[in-house]
Amino acid sequence: MSHSPSSSCAAPLRVGIVGLGRLGRRHAEALAFATRHVQLVAACSPVESEREFARGELGVPRIHADYEALLQDPEVDAVVLVTPTSLHADQTIAALRAGKHVFVEKPLALNVEDCERVLAVAAEHPDRVAMVGFVRRFDPSYQSAQASVAAGEIGRPFLVRSQTCDRNDPDGFFVRFAPTSGGIFMDCSVHDIDLARWLLGRPKALRAFASGTIALHPGLAECGDVDNGLAIVEFEGGARAVFYASRTMAHGHETSTEVIGTEGKLLVGEHAARDRVVRSDARGVGHAVLADFHERFEAAFSREMIAFVAACRGEQTLDLTLSDAVEATRIGVAITRSLISGQVAPV
Amino acid sequence: MSHSPSSSCAAPLRVGIVGLGRLGRRHAEALAFATRHVQLVAACSPVESEREFARGELGVPRIHADYEALLQDPEVDAVVLVTPTSLHADQTIAALRAGKHVFVEKPLALNVEDCERVLAVAAEHPDRVAMVGFVRRFDPSYQSAQASVAAGEIGRPFLVRSQTCDRNDPDGFFVRFAPTSGGIFMDCSVHDIDLARWLLGRPKALRAFASGTIALHPGLAECGDVDNGLAIVEFEGGARAVFYASRTMAHGHETSTEVIGTEGKLLVGEHAARDRVVRSDARGVGHAVLADFHERFEAAFSREMIAFVAACRGEQTLDLTLSDAVEATRIGVAITRSLISGQVAPV
Amino acid sequence: MSHSPSSSCAAPLRVGIVGLGRLGRRHAEALAFATRHVQLVAACSPVESEREFARGELGVPRIHADYEALLQDPEVDAVVLVTPTSLHADQTIAALRAGKHVFVEKPLALNVEDCERVLAVAAEHPDRVAMVGFVRRFDPSYQSAQASVAAGEIGRPFLVRSQTCDRNDPDGFFVRFAPTSGGIFMDCSVHDIDLARWLLGRPKALRAFASGTIALHPGLAECGDVDNGLAIVEFEGGARAVFYASRTMAHGHETSTEVIGTEGKLLVGEHAARDRVVRSDARGVGHAVLADFHERFEAAFSREMIAFVAACRGEQTLDLTLSDAVEATRIGVAITRSLISGQVAPV
Amino acid sequence: MSHSPSSSCAAPLRVGIVGLGRLGRRHAEALAFATRHVQLVAACSPVESEREFARGELGVPRIHADYEALLQDPEVDAVVLVTPTSLHADQTIAALRAGKHVFVEKPLALNVEDCERVLAVAAEHPDRVAMVGFVRRFDPSYQSAQASVAAGEIGRPFLVRSQTCDRNDPDGFFVRFAPTSGGIFMDCSVHDIDLARWLLGRPKALRAFASGTIALHPGLAECGDVDNGLAIVEFEGGARAVFYASRTMAHGHETSTEVIGTEGKLLVGEHAARDRVVRSDARGVGHAVLADFHERFEAAFSREMIAFVAACRGEQTLDLTLSDAVEATRIGVAITRSLISGQVAPV
Repeated sequence: MSHSPSSSCAAPLRVGIVGLGRLGRRHAEALAFATRHVQLVAACSPVESEREFARGELGVPRIHADYEALLQDPEVDAVVLVTPTSLHADQTIAALRAGKHVFVEKPLALNVEDCERVLAVAAEHPDRVAMVGFVRRFDPSYQSAQASVAAGEIGRPFLVRSQTCDRNDPDGFFVRFAPTSGGIFMDCSVHDIDLARWLLGRPKALRAFASGTIALHPGLAECGDVDNGLAIVEFEGGARAVFYASRTMAHGHETSTEVIGTEGKLLVGEHAARDRVVRSDARGVGHAVLADFHERFEAAFSREMIAFVAACRGEQTLDLTLSDAVEATRIGVAITRSLISGQVAPV
Repeated sequence: MSHSPSSSCAAPLRVGIVGLGRLGRRHAEALAFATRHVQLVAACSPVESEREFARGELGVPRIHADYEALLQDPEVDAVVLVTPTSLHADQTIAALRAGKHVFVEKPLALNVEDCERVLAVAAEHPDRVAMVGFVRRFDPSYQSAQASVAAGEIGRPFLVRSQTCDRNDPDGFFVRFAPTSGGIFMDCSVHDIDLARWLLGRPKALRAFASGTIALHPGLAECGDVDNGLAIVEFEGGARAVFYASRTMAHGHETSTEVIGTEGKLLVGEHAARDRVVRSDARGVGHAVLADFHERFEAAFSREMIAFVAACRGEQTLDLTLSDAVEATRIGVAITRSLISGQVAPV
Repeated sequence: MSHSPSSSCAAPLRVGIVGLGRLGRRHAEALAFATRHVQLVAACSPVESEREFARGELGVPRIHADYEALLQDPEVDAVVLVTPTSLHADQTIAALRAGKHVFVEKPLALNVEDCERVLAVAAEHPDRVAMVGFVRRFDPSYQSAQASVAAGEIGRPFLVRSQTCDRNDPDGFFVRFAPTSGGIFMDCSVHDIDLARWLLGRPKALRAFASGTIALHPGLAECGDVDNGLAIVEFEGGARAVFYASRTMAHGHETSTEVIGTEGKLLVGEHAARDRVVRSDARGVGHAVLADFHERFEAAFSREMIAFVAACRGEQTLDLTLSDAVEATRIGVAITRSLISGQVAPV
Repeated sequence: MSHSPSSSCAAPLRVGIVGLGRLGRRHAEALAFATRHVQLVAACSPVESEREFARGELGVPRIHADYEALLQDPEVDAVVLVTPTSLHADQTIAALRAGKHVFVEKPLALNVEDCERVLAVAAEHPDRVAMVGFVRRFDPSYQSAQASVAAGEIGRPFLVRSQTCDRNDPDGFFVRFAPTSGGIFMDCSVHDIDLARWLLGRPKALRAFASGTIALHPGLAECGDVDNGLAIVEFEGGARAVFYASRTMAHGHETSTEVIGTEGKLLVGEHAARDRVVRSDARGVGHAVLADFHERFEAAFSREMIAFVAACRGEQTLDLTLSDAVEATRIGVAITRSLISGQVAPV
């Protein structure tokens, strides 16, 4: 994750966006209108409507239907990959070999082997930035919590409890997506896994146990997936983590994380208040809830792009490394194995 | 509020309850079943069903229809008056003259003159306890807050914001009660006034301004009352208080008090959670709300009786004095004058 | 848990307390001073100071050093056992055989066999009440939550997350107690286990997995115990539970439980606010925390005794049965086996 | 606040910033880097270091020391005035007469006459946007609350309680600024006044009463100002408002507003949590607090500029009008008169 000192601080970074689905558009708009020191110079998508969006709405000058063409474009310094997970590893490798910096959405891959292939290629290109989108690390609240832990404010941290819980989608869109998602733990908990490692000081994971249930979406049974999953991970040195992932929350998107130490604990994100309004009426006292992770992590998505740009321009190093992404996949794979076997799985 | 050292610590206090309406029954049950060192030996009410309740449900041996008869009863050490406000002053005086300790519900009287008559008689009976039921002083949270203020934890307190807000009663029972209640400030805010003086260290009140509105109960206009009232009180030395009283809350009973000092502030009772349950569902995240002051101050009503009994038995002195009750009425009267005149009123 | 219709509703229940340690004294005081329809007529303890307390402070007329003597006392209708866990089963059986109703503190026993012996004897005495002290069931917040679940307000409940977390005791008193406590799950989580079954509708437990760590008290290693433990339990029909027990909280006693259903979730007890006071000062905004379970469950301990008395007097049946206590032990034992073996344990 | 239909939707708005103090820089950075459809083409300041900042950090091409020069610049479509309050009225008038759209920081003026002069000139230039920076209207939480009120969710709103409370500045910088600030109500409460009118449906204000105290900054006495002020405002039709302004909070910046209606109430901003982190340690459970209004209203400042740009480009009309600013000053002036006279003041 090092970077060349020859990166010019003066010139803006020229970025090409790859994939303009919902999350891709968000990244593209941030790059086009709300990030300093960057120019969104190119866009790539096999989908005509997405290319039209880039051309018309964002005013992107260079439009490609083909990823290879984008990589050949000498006016592009960096690529941002918001593509299907199955493409992540190979596209990242190709970008690095083409001399581009690369940001790739999480997870890096659904198996450890692909992750390690990327790691090996990245090691051959130490002057190129390769960053995986663990966006929760760039959320102001998570950053504040991690800084407190690092400063010793809760003593020695030894337990993380973390959840990614989505509002139920009655249409069950994600059920159709399940066969390629890698399962609930690879799709949702990979964020929690990364946070747990980050907050606990990157201990080595030893074993995992998982259990799940299908509360509302029986269609998941076909591919061995569940809509509510629990996992315990044991780390070397005694630290532990518990993860909970759900697709069936009634109230909204509630992503939260607790880190417990010998002198205190920190809890990030509980209750998922949409804003600073408290309502009191005949139904009681309460507040509205965040709809989804886009709403929850709006600021974090912006800061993530700012961090990527700063890293590419050599202004700042990243605490988040490719190795972190590999370890998150390694643990997620072990948890998934345990879910399927019903037994404790070595990591 | 002093007491005779000859009070025996060993013998239980023998109490007669006067008035067995809703609040009277609560006090009577507390005395009969849940307070140590006390015997509920007598009950008095002009209402047959109330006397029957005392006899049958509480097993009270001495039942009187007439207050004078109760006062003549040599087996009664103390009386607890839960009677209409218009009777408070004279009944308190009669009890003291009969040699009884006396607990009287708030307010002591609706005018300052009656309060001062009681004060004068009490001064002639320094060995009898006379206590007014400012129950919020006995609530654990208010006691904790006051102790913090007294310990200097918020520096010098200079502002109190306090409210007594009842859930709207669509039947408007209190409208019929309005002509004799003394108005919203005498009926509701008298608690807040007492708390403000207590928390601010009993400064002398100088001036008051009040304003009100009728949100839902036009019948109040006839007797010059409002269903939502605001008041500012200025104290000598610079301290200030703001009071809010409402009969029209949609969500429940929300009594709260904030005391602000030079080094911090304390807020008691906001949001009026009924219990420790948080609900998350399609309507958001929230909690149930207290229905009324009975539910809010259940523990305080018990502790209030315990404090009265302990004072009568000479085991403890009361921080809450008759003078406090006189001052609360004095300020309440000035606020009410301001509401009617529309101008600043001297206290 | 049935009761004889011949129980007189009129006569107060005559109770003997057995064991007057901290919790025993609390029960005894509640019975002596704050519970209707009951007389604390006897006390039993092998400890002279405890007998003296019962005689002097509580005014209990019949004092026994020997449990057998108490059971022979014809003036005693019911016994309340607050004795070491190792005695619970035999003392309960002896009480039933002596024709007494019996309340016994949790857990009923540390092994399933002892529980089943009690169950068998209780079955022979269907007119005697036998109740185990799962006090959290009598807490107003837990009762409200369970009523909501039973009323279908959160749809079908499928997951419980529950914790019993004590404030760290730097002296580590519990370390010396560890060899006989049955371990952290039997000592603390047994409450959470009972709640999970109650909230989920008493499904049959199938398997358990546990993992733990020692954060602060290395002395626990000797007896195979931990000071922080996690467990997942799988139930027939798909429901799941996650338990967390800790001896090392920095902030206080935080017992909380979340029950998640298909249409919402309920969370009981988070953040453990000591009272209704919010403080704002240079350190931020916050509140004080409950010190221990005595403070948290003060109201529940009273209600628990009221429920026991009412059941003995035939006025009400108990939802909490001896079978519930057996199942809680059965699950607790399986969790403990998993902690020791490191593998999934059948229940 | 109307706008010419001839405003081109295509061309970006060319803006000149006037004044580059702390808040000016924030606006300038938002315009330069984070707002679509706008170009920051000019900057104006009498201070050399501010001009240098605009040139060097923001890359602004046209730099002026003199406001008149900026107004003559034909490449400037709109000006953003972040200048001393005493200049607001005349600079706004000059901008309108020069054919520019104008955004001016609040308050529009410290007296009603100046406000009305601006209003008259604006009426002569109906195709130019003139907007006053009541930033709280653009905060997502305030917008959500106002939308709920407008949708009838709390019935008929009849009471607003609103506060602007700053963290105490031990250096008392604002004391030196006091003689020209217009006093605490004109400086701080003008926001609350505007919100109250907005939430209550713009009723006509009739009377005001104010009271204040000096808690920590005796230097304010010289200019008749206070560091803690309270005010009640009466509106035609029965609505009421209570304002609290403070310079002496120990914990941080806590701006909050409650609007109470016949069927519910909404509370915005209480407790001023800095982020989504809850800390539990030996001091209790709590959270960090916002430092100042910059931190609290970061998102609102951005949205405010976006709204100004959209209005200038004819894409959207503004709910916030110049008349609103005039009325806010009118009420603020009446409150201030009452503070000084000690009597009720007509508005």
